[in-house]
Amino acid sequence: MFEKGEIDENYVRVERDELFKFIVNVMVKLGVNRRDAKIFADNLVTADLRGVESHGVQRLKRYVNGILSGGVNVKSKIRIVREGETYALLDGDRGLGQIIGFKAMKIAINKARDHGLGFVLVKNSNHYGIAGYYALIAAKEEMIGISMTNSRPLVAPTNSIDRFLGTNPIAFAAPTNSRPFLLDMATSIVPIGKLEVYRRKERKIPRGWAIDSNGNLTDNPEDVFNGGALLPLGGLGEILGGHKGYGLSLMIDIITGILSGGVWSRYVKNTEHRDSNVSHLFTAINIEAFMPLKDFKKRMDEMIAEIKKLRRHSKFNEIWIHGEKGFLTEETRLKIGIPIYRKVLCELNIIADQLRIDRLKVK
Amino acid sequence: MFEKGEIDENYVRVERDELFKFIVNVMVKLGVNRRDAKIFADNLVTADLRGVESHGVQRLKRYVNGILSGGVNVKSKIRIVREGETYALLDGDRGLGQIIGFKAMKIAINKARDHGLGFVLVKNSNHYGIAGYYALIAAKEEMIGISMTNSRPLVAPTNSIDRFLGTNPIAFAAPTNSRPFLLDMATSIVPIGKLEVYRRKERKIPRGWAIDSNGNLTDNPEDVFNGGALLPLGGLGEILGGHKGYGLSLMIDIITGILSGGVWSRYVKNTEHRDSNVSHLFTAINIEAFMPLKDFKKRMDEMIAEIKKLRRHSKFNEIWIHGEKGFLTEETRLKIGIPIYRKVLCELNIIADQLRIDRLKVK
Repeated sequence: MFEKGEIDENYVRVERDELFKFIVNVMVKLGVNRRDAKIFADNLVTADLRGVESHGVQRLKRYVNGILSGGVNVKSKIRIVREGETYALLDGDRGLGQIIGFKAMKIAINKARDHGLGFVLVKNSNHYGIAGYYALIAAKEEMIGISMTNSRPLVAPTNSIDRFLGTNPIAFAAPTNSRPFLLDMATSIVPIGKLEVYRRKERKIPRGWAIDSNGNLTDNPEDVFNGGALLPLGGLGEILGGHKGYGLSLMIDIITGILSGGVWSRYVKNTEHRDSNVSHLFTAINIEAFMPLKDFKKRMDEMIAEIKKLRRHSKFNEIWIHGEKGFLTEETRLKIGIPIYRKVLCELNIIADQLRIDRLKVK
Repeated sequence: MFEKGEIDENYVRVERDELFKFIVNVMVKLGVNRRDAKIFADNLVTADLRGVESHGVQRLKRYVNGILSGGVNVKSKIRIVREGETYALLDGDRGLGQIIGFKAMKIAINKARDHGLGFVLVKNSNHYGIAGYYALIAAKEEMIGISMTNSRPLVAPTNSIDRFLGTNPIAFAAPTNSRPFLLDMATSIVPIGKLEVYRRKERKIPRGWAIDSNGNLTDNPEDVFNGGALLPLGGLGEILGGHKGYGLSLMIDIITGILSGGVWSRYVKNTEHRDSNVSHLFTAINIEAFMPLKDFKKRMDEMIAEIKKLRRHSKFNEIWIHGEKGFLTEETRLKIGIPIYRKVLCELNIIADQLRIDRLKVK
């Protein structure tokens, strides 16, 4: 059975439905209505199922703190600021990013169904979890889905040592006759969550991912948390294309943060703070506007089959299609449960006790 | 005066207007109507002015060969296959990519002016030069412009040693109160043209750009031309994010090659061949649909000014904004002329003699 990430004795396993129920209970207790709480829970559980531990229930504490501090508005009313047949600009009213994102992607899909395209910008939102979640919603509706978001500053622009860019991810999904194609990537080499995992395990990071406060490459994650910065995809300087990752990050910031009327990454705050002010984009493309859906899916299948048959590099076992590892991990975890880091479980127990709800049931 | 790239005694200089005139004459002689010939010439000259030597007049020979071999149709009639208010699918009828691209971007801009967005796919085209050219057309019309294209297979997917992906570039431009922001990047670490320059100068390439026919990293450009492959942005394997460049390249291929009904990169041919069958996307976003244009430009100016003021890395002199080096190079070359490699000049002279037109006038 395939599983993404290294799971060891520091993890316990929980059933998907138990984790889902627990998150719903937390959110309902905090004032979120049940329907929205389920949307939120499905987002986090999906991240954990797919092996994106950094964006799963591990983050619940931050969202809870955001709500308790008043930074996140659980009674938010999404407002349509501008709208045309194929586009819209929404104000998220400081709500949970996962709930706003779900609704915004649904609007994009409806526009695409009626008019071929849907392009929906959101400002005044919060951290929305995995970008791929929204792209997948479109793919499940047999459309191409794209989502991107800005995020708090963690990445140094090429030739600078200051954190200015977010890890600003982009996700792209397209349907096939089996699993969707799903690209879901930060425009930095790695997201910050990956460094948190290395720090927790007291392991060195590969040299090239990040710089210390003087701009030198470092293999010590502590250096990055102490005034250093992540590097854009392509790495330090321009030799291996660092200016491209820097440019992709700025592109995403211009579309989301600037065009929406929100703020650019430099001014985006942690979810725990008031006015985190994250901006997102949700795009849906109706395949049927361009060709019969069955032809598109057949062509996707053919291309993927060709890739799978390419000659492999002697150092590597498999040529992967984007999203494939996540789907395999999901299949595994639906059977044997989702691994939860013991320290995270402690945090969840504290939340449960504070809110006087049942603790998460471990297998 | 700033100039991108290394210019030495192997170059002569020509005036922008002379180069433009020469290219127009070549194309008119080959049967292209004068108006279209000017569109084509402006594209190539713009690449040379901006320092993208690989996509300038150096490529003229290939386009000429493509026309002479019948692969490129100089009497092409662009056909609208599908159309909605904000989208269109065009068949380029094997015409010159630069001319089809110009017209397709104009259609996208008109749709965006009327309805907020323009999303125009093209199949059955040829190599279209620099992707940034089209994004800039939109920026000059005060819109956000995006263009992407697939291209012939040169890049190995992560963990494979076969050429399957194109260098599939993406360009993104946005207006400011001074020079537009312009990201224009291949999704491989470098485009093949860069290796051609290193080969010509008999220089080693930085290790990390490409692999030889066995999949090993190489610093010898000959290895790449002899059965090797370029690497996607992020490099070999997944450690530094090679799967992200691979994914971006596939995303572009899915949107352009698959959704348009064209072919994916594996089946794209050189311009010299019949049925090169390149596919492109042109997108325009009407800023005024989301916010007043002057606010957008002011915000762009502010963000760029902030980046320019960040602390610099001790190893580097300047923090660059995307497009900036190209604009500075353009300003230089409009004054002192465009450098043309002597061997390229020889090729141009042969073309001139074959077509019985005046040779290019050198300064």
